[in-house]
Amino acid sequence: MTPHGVVQTPAFMPVGTLATVKGLLPDQLKQAGAQMVLANTYHLALRPGSELVRDLGGLHRFMDWDGPILTDSGGFQVFSLAKLRKLDDEKAVFRSHIDGSLLELSPERAIQIQEDLGADCIMCLDECVPADDNQERLQAAVDRTTLWAKRCRDAQQRTDQALFGIVQGGIDEALRTRSAKGLLPIDFPGYAVGGLSVGEAPPEMYKTLDFTVPQLPMDRPRYLMGVGTPADIIEAVCRGIDLFDCVMPTRNGRNAMAFTSGGPVRLRNTIHSTDESPLDPQCDCTACRRYSRAYLRHLFAAKEMLGPILLSLHNTVFYQKLVRELRIAVNNGTVTQFRANQLARWNSQS
Amino acid sequence: MTPHGVVQTPAFMPVGTLATVKGLLPDQLKQAGAQMVLANTYHLALRPGSELVRDLGGLHRFMDWDGPILTDSGGFQVFSLAKLRKLDDEKAVFRSHIDGSLLELSPERAIQIQEDLGADCIMCLDECVPADDNQERLQAAVDRTTLWAKRCRDAQQRTDQALFGIVQGGIDEALRTRSAKGLLPIDFPGYAVGGLSVGEAPPEMYKTLDFTVPQLPMDRPRYLMGVGTPADIIEAVCRGIDLFDCVMPTRNGRNAMAFTSGGPVRLRNTIHSTDESPLDPQCDCTACRRYSRAYLRHLFAAKEMLGPILLSLHNTVFYQKLVRELRIAVNNGTVTQFRANQLARWNSQS
Repeated sequence: MTPHGVVQTPAFMPVGTLATVKGLLPDQLKQAGAQMVLANTYHLALRPGSELVRDLGGLHRFMDWDGPILTDSGGFQVFSLAKLRKLDDEKAVFRSHIDGSLLELSPERAIQIQEDLGADCIMCLDECVPADDNQERLQAAVDRTTLWAKRCRDAQQRTDQALFGIVQGGIDEALRTRSAKGLLPIDFPGYAVGGLSVGEAPPEMYKTLDFTVPQLPMDRPRYLMGVGTPADIIEAVCRGIDLFDCVMPTRNGRNAMAFTSGGPVRLRNTIHSTDESPLDPQCDCTACRRYSRAYLRHLFAAKEMLGPILLSLHNTVFYQKLVRELRIAVNNGTVTQFRANQLARWNSQS
Repeated sequence: MTPHGVVQTPAFMPVGTLATVKGLLPDQLKQAGAQMVLANTYHLALRPGSELVRDLGGLHRFMDWDGPILTDSGGFQVFSLAKLRKLDDEKAVFRSHIDGSLLELSPERAIQIQEDLGADCIMCLDECVPADDNQERLQAAVDRTTLWAKRCRDAQQRTDQALFGIVQGGIDEALRTRSAKGLLPIDFPGYAVGGLSVGEAPPEMYKTLDFTVPQLPMDRPRYLMGVGTPADIIEAVCRGIDLFDCVMPTRNGRNAMAFTSGGPVRLRNTIHSTDESPLDPQCDCTACRRYSRAYLRHLFAAKEMLGPILLSLHNTVFYQKLVRELRIAVNNGTVTQFRANQLARWNSQS
């Protein structure tokens, strides 16, 4: 339950980095079954600026999405996209990846920006380190993430936003436990698992969930950040995750890759050039009901915008259908069987 | 009346060069009020090929547009986009602008391709010469266009496509008269005015229509190819034109330029960056009902696909509303007054 409506879980949030899910209108997202979308604090803080979004009535009104929204803290982008200049317990100082201007992000500032944006769920600022960093660096990042989580909690002014704590610690059980134990006393209304799907093999991610998720309260939403493939989502739901976000459906869609009931389809392949059949006969989205694979391939060959639009739409519908089926399977207690059936069908999908 | 439905005139055809109106779904075009769309023979012949479109059930099914379609002959692109290698009365030999391959276009081939595509209205192959060519070249092009028009008529196999003759002759009254007189005996079901809006000043185009349109039968559709601005369309309707096509609404939309009831708006201008007001308060399209100018400007600043999508939609709605109002004004006999009112409002628009 959020100020903008109920979110049934497991749920998948399409990513609207810059206050738009690339290529799709809010009505198309709703029709696809999306309940909640994610927007990126770092990107919006740089452009158009969180104060402007606030002055224009907040993110919901700005992007015309009246359902729930979650914003991340901006930390992930500061540590991946921006040029980090200085980092200490106080804050991160970095250069914008757009114009090189010098900016700062502290826990307090991350909360202030997210209060300006006005999402329903907001995230603590965390330190994101490469998964292959040494144990000492990983532990320091966990401890700083805990410190920052407390400061984020203290910095909250608005009472209508659910602040999530983020568990870090790479794929190390002791560190994940240390992180969870540090966060639990702060009593967040939701917990995220960060620092996964950053290059580790899927079995490592699943194993990490195996020992991390049971440490998080069952009565609070558990959010796996930035994940993942359809198989990842099924595996994570089996391990107790409720909430997902990933650019994959839209990014892959823009690159002519479709998720289908029979596994991934790459529409640039010549084999589709004369194919009259629909992309996925089991899908009722506009791309599948109205067009042939030959037409969709033609759109990408001719660099027509409608190609990315239709495939982003299809993949979004595919992901929403997947989590809808997972909700049913969870309710019916048949999720293990659902996993076996789906993974067998997508055996070529990773 | 076409095999795919009635077209009320004056009508404006959105341009679907490669079997897609850039960025818009057929449902969005219909909701905007579009009755008929145009597709480009040259582009489709090169990619994906007219035989493939035929084998996939024709253009209507390929692009999921069940209303009327008009295809041009490909001549204009052969003379503008391609590298022309050889031209005589028989045919044009040219190199593809995509891969440089050597291709031919004769009147017979232009008809064959258009029969494969299967549009409701098709066009004769015409010779398009620069408007500033000398009188001799212009007259030779007129005569070749007449010769080719006869051959196109003779080459028609299908009986369900309305073939339009194209009047050429630049801005010269004698040549336009010569062209019209050459075409009328062939008794086409529709006539187009070609070779305008190619760089001449608007008053020259209007004057050319003044002496050309009256020479074309009143009981057949009269189509002004590739035109134009909202003001051009009003002026041409006042002079008896029924049918228009132009890339302007979608191309300008992709470039952040909107046609509005108050004149053109360039959304990249900084003045819009904090503007809460809608793009056009008199428009009921999605872009105007749902978003602020500040948001639309943000989409273009951030290079988000939704910017081109929303502005292409808005401009398409604007053009369709314009021709709808022109139909009413023509019916009511108030078109001169309508012209005066609109042009006064758009005084900055050209």
